[in-house]
Amino acid sequence: MAYFDTIPAVKYEGKASRTPLAFHFYDPEEVILGKKMKDHLNFAMSYWHTMCAEGVDMFGVGTVDKSYGQTDPMEQALAKAEAAFELMDKLGLQYYCFHDRDIAPEAETLTETNARLDIVADKLLELQQKYGKKVLWGTANLFSNPRYMNGAGSSNSPEVFAFAAAQVKKAIEITHKLGGQGFVFWGGREGYETLLNTNYKLEQDNIARLFTLARDYARSIGFTGPFYIEPKPKEPMKHQYDYDAATAIGFLRKYGLDKDFRMNIEANHATLAGHTFQHELRVSREEGFFGSIDANIGDMLLGWDTDQFPTNAYDTTLAMLEVLDAGGFTTGGLNFDAKTRRPSNTFEDLFQAYIAGMDTFALGLRMAAKIKADGRIEEALAAKYAGWSGELGQDIQSGKLGFAELEAYALGKGNVSTGSGRQEYLEAVLNDVLFGA
Amino acid sequence: MAYFDTIPAVKYEGKASRTPLAFHFYDPEEVILGKKMKDHLNFAMSYWHTMCAEGVDMFGVGTVDKSYGQTDPMEQALAKAEAAFELMDKLGLQYYCFHDRDIAPEAETLTETNARLDIVADKLLELQQKYGKKVLWGTANLFSNPRYMNGAGSSNSPEVFAFAAAQVKKAIEITHKLGGQGFVFWGGREGYETLLNTNYKLEQDNIARLFTLARDYARSIGFTGPFYIEPKPKEPMKHQYDYDAATAIGFLRKYGLDKDFRMNIEANHATLAGHTFQHELRVSREEGFFGSIDANIGDMLLGWDTDQFPTNAYDTTLAMLEVLDAGGFTTGGLNFDAKTRRPSNTFEDLFQAYIAGMDTFALGLRMAAKIKADGRIEEALAAKYAGWSGELGQDIQSGKLGFAELEAYALGKGNVSTGSGRQEYLEAVLNDVLFGA
Amino acid sequence: MAYFDTIPAVKYEGKASRTPLAFHFYDPEEVILGKKMKDHLNFAMSYWHTMCAEGVDMFGVGTVDKSYGQTDPMEQALAKAEAAFELMDKLGLQYYCFHDRDIAPEAETLTETNARLDIVADKLLELQQKYGKKVLWGTANLFSNPRYMNGAGSSNSPEVFAFAAAQVKKAIEITHKLGGQGFVFWGGREGYETLLNTNYKLEQDNIARLFTLARDYARSIGFTGPFYIEPKPKEPMKHQYDYDAATAIGFLRKYGLDKDFRMNIEANHATLAGHTFQHELRVSREEGFFGSIDANIGDMLLGWDTDQFPTNAYDTTLAMLEVLDAGGFTTGGLNFDAKTRRPSNTFEDLFQAYIAGMDTFALGLRMAAKIKADGRIEEALAAKYAGWSGELGQDIQSGKLGFAELEAYALGKGNVSTGSGRQEYLEAVLNDVLFGA
Amino acid sequence: MAYFDTIPAVKYEGKASRTPLAFHFYDPEEVILGKKMKDHLNFAMSYWHTMCAEGVDMFGVGTVDKSYGQTDPMEQALAKAEAAFELMDKLGLQYYCFHDRDIAPEAETLTETNARLDIVADKLLELQQKYGKKVLWGTANLFSNPRYMNGAGSSNSPEVFAFAAAQVKKAIEITHKLGGQGFVFWGGREGYETLLNTNYKLEQDNIARLFTLARDYARSIGFTGPFYIEPKPKEPMKHQYDYDAATAIGFLRKYGLDKDFRMNIEANHATLAGHTFQHELRVSREEGFFGSIDANIGDMLLGWDTDQFPTNAYDTTLAMLEVLDAGGFTTGGLNFDAKTRRPSNTFEDLFQAYIAGMDTFALGLRMAAKIKADGRIEEALAAKYAGWSGELGQDIQSGKLGFAELEAYALGKGNVSTGSGRQEYLEAVLNDVLFGA
Repeated sequence: MAYFDTIPAVKYEGKASRTPLAFHFYDPEEVILGKKMKDHLNFAMSYWHTMCAEGVDMFGVGTVDKSYGQTDPMEQALAKAEAAFELMDKLGLQYYCFHDRDIAPEAETLTETNARLDIVADKLLELQQKYGKKVLWGTANLFSNPRYMNGAGSSNSPEVFAFAAAQVKKAIEITHKLGGQGFVFWGGREGYETLLNTNYKLEQDNIARLFTLARDYARSIGFTGPFYIEPKPKEPMKHQYDYDAATAIGFLRKYGLDKDFRMNIEANHATLAGHTFQHELRVSREEGFFGSIDANIGDMLLGWDTDQFPTNAYDTTLAMLEVLDAGGFTTGGLNFDAKTRRPSNTFEDLFQAYIAGMDTFALGLRMAAKIKADGRIEEALAAKYAGWSGELGQDIQSGKLGFAELEAYALGKGNVSTGSGRQEYLEAVLNDVLFGA
Repeated sequence: MAYFDTIPAVKYEGKASRTPLAFHFYDPEEVILGKKMKDHLNFAMSYWHTMCAEGVDMFGVGTVDKSYGQTDPMEQALAKAEAAFELMDKLGLQYYCFHDRDIAPEAETLTETNARLDIVADKLLELQQKYGKKVLWGTANLFSNPRYMNGAGSSNSPEVFAFAAAQVKKAIEITHKLGGQGFVFWGGREGYETLLNTNYKLEQDNIARLFTLARDYARSIGFTGPFYIEPKPKEPMKHQYDYDAATAIGFLRKYGLDKDFRMNIEANHATLAGHTFQHELRVSREEGFFGSIDANIGDMLLGWDTDQFPTNAYDTTLAMLEVLDAGGFTTGGLNFDAKTRRPSNTFEDLFQAYIAGMDTFALGLRMAAKIKADGRIEEALAAKYAGWSGELGQDIQSGKLGFAELEAYALGKGNVSTGSGRQEYLEAVLNDVLFGA
Repeated sequence: MAYFDTIPAVKYEGKASRTPLAFHFYDPEEVILGKKMKDHLNFAMSYWHTMCAEGVDMFGVGTVDKSYGQTDPMEQALAKAEAAFELMDKLGLQYYCFHDRDIAPEAETLTETNARLDIVADKLLELQQKYGKKVLWGTANLFSNPRYMNGAGSSNSPEVFAFAAAQVKKAIEITHKLGGQGFVFWGGREGYETLLNTNYKLEQDNIARLFTLARDYARSIGFTGPFYIEPKPKEPMKHQYDYDAATAIGFLRKYGLDKDFRMNIEANHATLAGHTFQHELRVSREEGFFGSIDANIGDMLLGWDTDQFPTNAYDTTLAMLEVLDAGGFTTGGLNFDAKTRRPSNTFEDLFQAYIAGMDTFALGLRMAAKIKADGRIEEALAAKYAGWSGELGQDIQSGKLGFAELEAYALGKGNVSTGSGRQEYLEAVLNDVLFGA
Repeated sequence: MAYFDTIPAVKYEGKASRTPLAFHFYDPEEVILGKKMKDHLNFAMSYWHTMCAEGVDMFGVGTVDKSYGQTDPMEQALAKAEAAFELMDKLGLQYYCFHDRDIAPEAETLTETNARLDIVADKLLELQQKYGKKVLWGTANLFSNPRYMNGAGSSNSPEVFAFAAAQVKKAIEITHKLGGQGFVFWGGREGYETLLNTNYKLEQDNIARLFTLARDYARSIGFTGPFYIEPKPKEPMKHQYDYDAATAIGFLRKYGLDKDFRMNIEANHATLAGHTFQHELRVSREEGFFGSIDANIGDMLLGWDTDQFPTNAYDTTLAMLEVLDAGGFTTGGLNFDAKTRRPSNTFEDLFQAYIAGMDTFALGLRMAAKIKADGRIEEALAAKYAGWSGELGQDIQSGKLGFAELEAYALGKGNVSTGSGRQEYLEAVLNDVLFGA
C-alpha cells in the first residue's frame, strides 16, 4: 500500500531542472573526492518530525494529518513504519533516526510500552531488510512524559531516575537490534527552570551516572557504536546542562566519558547558544569529538528551535568543509531534524522540503570540495600562521623559551606587528567559489 | 599625488577571474533589465568609515593610519579629500556620502568650524568636477560632540537644540552646494539612556520641530531632494526613537512630514531591530517611503553595529528584488556604510572589501533579475492570493459585505481551508536561481 | 461543588506573614492615593492559561489535569466555568478575560460552535451575577484553528476572512452580552512566515478592514467599550504585524482607527520586541493610547513567550508609575496572562502564582505612590528640562525662531553644554524607595 | 591636593537618609553572620573605568575630563594615582584592581614602558601604605595595542606572543610588588573574527602555554595568589575562547591549570553569554572554581557590555547567596568593573554611582543573610531532593544498582511522579525576604 502515491520516486535531474519533485543538485552516485555523494552525506530521516509531527505549535492545533488511515494507536504505528520506508525509498534516504516513543506509542505501563516497542521493532527490521535502509542512531525520549518534568537523569526523584534508566536500557536494546550505528542523548529536561530550586552538583553527578550505566550496559550487550551528546542551551527548560559543545565536552572529560561519547551537532541548537553551526562543528572536530549532525537551520531573529529544513548554501558549505576536514563521517551522518513550516501542510511540501535540504547539502559538499581545489583559503591560513613554523614559533611551542627569554626577545625588538586577517578577501573568495566559474 | 599607488584601477574581469583586485561579478556597463548595472546600483562611498575610521574599537586603538601623510588637521582634511576621489575613481564609485564632521574637523567655535567646512567644500566641488563624481547625500553629525550627549533635536536643553539647528542648516547648505541628491537624519543620540529621566513627549515634539525647520529651510534655498530618516533601534543610546521603518513612518505621518521624508534603510540596523533587511525594505516600499540604502551586513550573533561589508548573496538578492519592485532608485543608492574588520588593516583590505561588497550586490542584482525572468516565485504568490480577485474577495475589499453577510457566508460554508504557504519550495526555487543553470 | 476545596479564601495577612496562601502585600481595601488598591489594580483572571492550560509545551504533554472531573466537552466547559468563579472568588479577582474558544469548545460546524457559546455564556452570566464578577475584555481566538494558518484578517483566502469576521461578530456579541468592558485583538497569525510568499499591502489593508467592520458592528449593537490591540512581534509567526506599540499606533492612525482602539500592553511581548515593559506603556500613554495590561513577565534570556507570573517589583513599580501617570485604568486592568512553570503542577501552585503576581503588583502600586510622595525623581526631571520653560525654549516651541535665528544664536554662543543625566542617582533613589525607610 | 574637593567622605546614614552622597544601606562596620560587611564584600575600585575612562563611545568623544590637571602623560599618571586613593578613601573602598596600561601610559618601546610602570608602582606602593589600601588583583592589557589585533597568546605571530609574555611577566612582577592578592586574564582578543582564517587548535594550545608560563614564573618569584580567568563570550571579537565559566573550566582542566586558576565572574559577561549572573557563580562554585567577581550589570535588551553600576537588588541578593554558599571570598572581592552612563558626566555622578553599587550589594548581602535565616528556600530544596537520601537514591549513587536492577524496579512500579518545582512560591518567598517584615 502506498501512502504517498501522488509522489514519484525523486530523481536527480541536474541544475537546469525546474521539476519541483526532483533533485537539482544532489546526485547520489556522483563521485566527489573519491567517494559517492550519498556516502559523504549519509542522509537520514528524522522519524519524529517527518512521520509524527502534524504542525502543532504553542498557539495552534495540527494542520496535517499523520494518522496514515488508522485510528488504533498500534495500527497507526505499523502503518507509520510502512509509510516511513516508502518515504525514505522515494527520497533515496539511506538512514533514519528515532526516539523510542516515535516508533511505538506509550502505554499505561512500562511493561506494555516495551511490548509495543518489540512489535514495532520487528516490523522495522523487516522493512529495513526489504528496503535496504539502516538506523543512523536511536534515542530515548526522556522529556515528554510528565514524570520527566524535573529532569530524567537529573530528576529530583530517584524513582524517575530508575524509569529513565529502564527506558534507556530498552532503547539501547532496540537500537542495537536494528543495527543502529550510534545512540544519542538529548537532554531536553536535563537542566533547570530556576536555580532557586536546583541542586546543580547532584544533578550533574546523576546525569554522568546515567551515561556511565548506559555505556557499560551497551558494551555488555555488544553495542560498539558511539554515544552522542546533542548540545542545546535552552528550550524546553530555562537552562540545559548540555549548553554547547565546549560545555558538553568538558563534562564528558570530567566524568571519564570522553572515550565513548561524541557530539551530535544541530545547527539550530548552535545558534540558540550564540554560536555558528560551523563553530560547534569546529570545536567538536578540533577537540576530537566530531560525530554526527542534525541538519536544519534556525531563524536568527527568533529565539526558539524552528527546526527549518536547511536551505542556506553558505551554512552547508562551511559545515561540509568541517566534515571533510574531520575525514568525513564514520558512524555519523546528516539527520534532517527539521519540519516544514506549519502552513506547509501537504505531503508534497514534506517531500519538497527534504529535496530542498538534500540539494542544499549537496551544494555544500560540492562547494566545500571546490574550496579545497581552489586552495586560496588554505593558502591564506598557512601564510597567516607561518611564523609558528619558524624558529621562534617552534621554540615557544617546544617549551624551550620561558618568560625570561621571551621578555629579552621583546625588549630587544622594540615593536612588532602582525599581518592582516584578510577577512573580506576570504569572504570574497567564498563567493567566488559559490558563484564563480 | 597618489595615496593608494599600489592599488590599480579596479576592472571587471568576469566570474572566472582570481585576481583579488578585480571585479568578478560587477560589470558597470552591463545592461540588465534595460539599465546599466552601475545605474541600478548607484554605489556610494561612505566618507566616515572609508576615509576616517582607523580601526578603533571600545577595547583598542587604531590599526591603520588615515592621516594621509599630514599632521595639521586641515591639511589632513584636504589630503583626505584627494584620497577619497582617488579611491572612488579606482573603484568606479559614482557617489559619496558624508557627515559635516567627516570632511572637515571641528574647531573651537562654530564660526571657525563653518569656515573650515567652506574650504573643504570648495575642494570637494573641484574634485567632483575633475573626477565626475556626485554626492548621494549629506548629513550632520549630531552625535559625537559632548553637547549632544542627551540628544540634539531631543536635547533637554534648548541651547543644544539651537546648535543642532545651526549645524543642520550649514550641512544642508554644503550638501546643496555640492549638488547632493538627498539629506539624511540618523538620530544616534535621539533617544534615551533611561526612562527615569526622559520627557518622551517633549522630545518627540522637538525632533519633529527640528525636521520641520530643516525641511522649510532647505526648500527655501532651493534644495528639492528628499530627506531620509535612517532607523536604528539602539546604540549608542539604550533606545533610539527611529527604532525601525514602521516607527519612523508613523512618526513622519503624525507630524506631517511624510511628503518630504523617505527611509534610508541599513541592513545592520534592521537586524538590530529584530527585522530582516528585506523586511525593512518591504515596509518602506509598500508604505511609499522607499528611498535609499546603507549597504552593509551585521553579525546575527552579535548585538552591536558591526557594519561589515555585505558579502551574503541571499541578502543582496532579496534586497535588490525590493529595489526592482520599487522601480529602482531615483535619488537614492547603495552607500557602503561599512568598515573592514579591525585586523584587516591595510589599504588593500579596504579596496578588497569594497570589491567584495560591490560584487555581492552585483550578484544580488543579477539574481533578482533572474528571479523575475524565472517567474516561479511570482506565480506562487499570485496563486496563493487568487481568491482575492474572485467575487467574494472583491466584495469584501469594496466594502459590499458587512459582518452580517460574512457571518451568513461562513455559517453556510461549514468549513474552509487555505492552501499551503509552500515556503520550502520557494526557498528551493531561490537556490535554483542562485546556483542553477 | 468545590473544585479547589483544599484551598482557602485568600486573605491579606500583611508583610510579616509567612502563610503561603495569603496575601502579604495586597490589601484590596487599603486606600492609596484616594482609591482602594483593588480599584487601582483591576486584577483579572485569564481564562485560557488558568482554566484550560495543562502544562503542555513543544516537548512534552500536560502535567496537570484540567478536566474538572468531566469527560464530555460541554460538561467540561460548564464545570470549568464554575471552577473559574470559585478561583476568582477565593483570590478576590474582580474580573476575567476570555477567548471564545476557551469558554466553549469548538464543534464541527460554526453553527454548532456558536450554539455552544450561547450555552456557556448563559452560564457565565449567571455566575457573574452570583459572584459579582465582571468581564474585563473578551476576544476571538483567530489563531488555533488550521484555517487561520496563513492569517485571519490577513489570510490569503477571502473565505477564511469571512470565517474570521463571523467569529469576531459572535465574540463581540458574547462579550457585549456579558458586559465586557473592552474587546481585544491579538494577531498571533496576522503576520508572515516568509516574505517570499507574502503580499504585505493586501494583508495590511485587509486587517484594517476587519477591524473597521468589527468597530462598526460593535457600535451598531451598542457596545461602547474600547477595542485593544495587543502588540507582539513574533511567535507563533516569524513576524507579526502588531510588532510593538509604535507600529500598532501608526497602523491605527493610518487607517482611521485611532478613536476606537487602544493598546493592551503585555510585559513579555514588550521584551520580545526589544523594549522594556515600561517603554511600551510610556509610548502608549504619551501617544494617547493607554488602555489595558497583560500582566506577566518574560525571561530576558529566552526568546519565546514564557508568560511567567510577574514577581519582579522593579518592573511592577515602573509599570504602575505609568498607570498612575495615565490617570489610572478606566476600562482596563491587569490581566494575568500568565501560567505556572510546567513543573509547578498543582492547583496550590496555581493559587500561589496568582498570589505572587498580585502581591508583586500591589508592591508596585505602593512603591509607585511612594515615588510620587518622595518627589526626587520628578524634581530631577523638572530640573533637567528647565531650559524649555525659559525664553529660548518657549520661542523654539512656539515657532518664533527659524534656522536663521537659531544659527545666529549658536554662532554667538561659542559653545554650550547640557547637564548630567544623573541615571545612577535616579536608580539609587529607586532603591531608596523600594528598600528604604 | 584634593581632586574631588567638593565631595565629602561618604558615610553610612541609614535607610531613612536622603543625602545623595551617603550610604543608605552599606554600613562597613556592621556585623552580619559573624563578619563585618566590608569584609564580606571586599569592594574594589576598577582603575580603568574610574580613573581613566572619559565617556568615549563608538559614536562620540569624551564627556568628562580625567586629565587631573596635567598634560604630560607621566604627570597625569601620578596625579591619577593620587586621585585614585582620594576616591578610594572617601568611598571607603579597601581594594583596587588595575591593568598595567591604566596606571602608566605606554611609551614607544617596551623598555621605556616598563620603566614608567616602575615609577608609578613606587608611587602606588607609597599611597597604599599611606591610605591602607590593597590590590585585589592586577592584570595585563593584552588587547588595546594594535599588535594584539589577532590575539595575544592566540596571536598568529610568535613575535606577538613574545610581547604578550613579556608584558604579563612585568604585570605579574608589579602585581606581586604591590601585594596583589590575585592576577586576572581577560582574553578580549583571544578569539576570532572569522573561522575562515582561524587555526583553532594552535590558538588554544598557545593560550594554555601562555598561562602555564605565567603560572610557573609567578610561583618562581613567590607569588602564591590565584590566577583568574574572566569569561566573556564576545566583544571585541566575534567569538572569544573564554566563552563562559563552563568553557573556561573545561579548558583549565584539559591543560592541567585547574589547581592555580579560578573564575572572575562578571555579571554583564554572564548575560552576554546567555546566562544569569547567578548561573555563572553557581557553576564556578559547584565546580570548585569560585574566585572573584566583577560587579556590574548589563542591559538585558542591549547586546554589548554596558558595564553599568549594579543597582538591582534581586541580582545582588542571588549573587551574595552564592558567595555565602561558597564560604565567602578568600582572595577575591567585588570589583566595580562599571562606568557611569556617558551623560552622567560629573565627578559627583561617579561617586553617586559607586554609592549606588555599594548600597545595592550591601542590600544583597543583607537579603542573602535574611534568606538563610528565613530558611524557606533551603527547606523547599531539601524536600524536593529528599528521595536521594532514601535507600533507592543512595543505592543508585553508590553504584549498587545497574541497568538491570533499575529496569526491574521501574517495571514493578507501573508509574511514578515527581513533586512540583514550586517556582512561583519560591519567587514569592524571595519577595517576602526583600520587601517583607
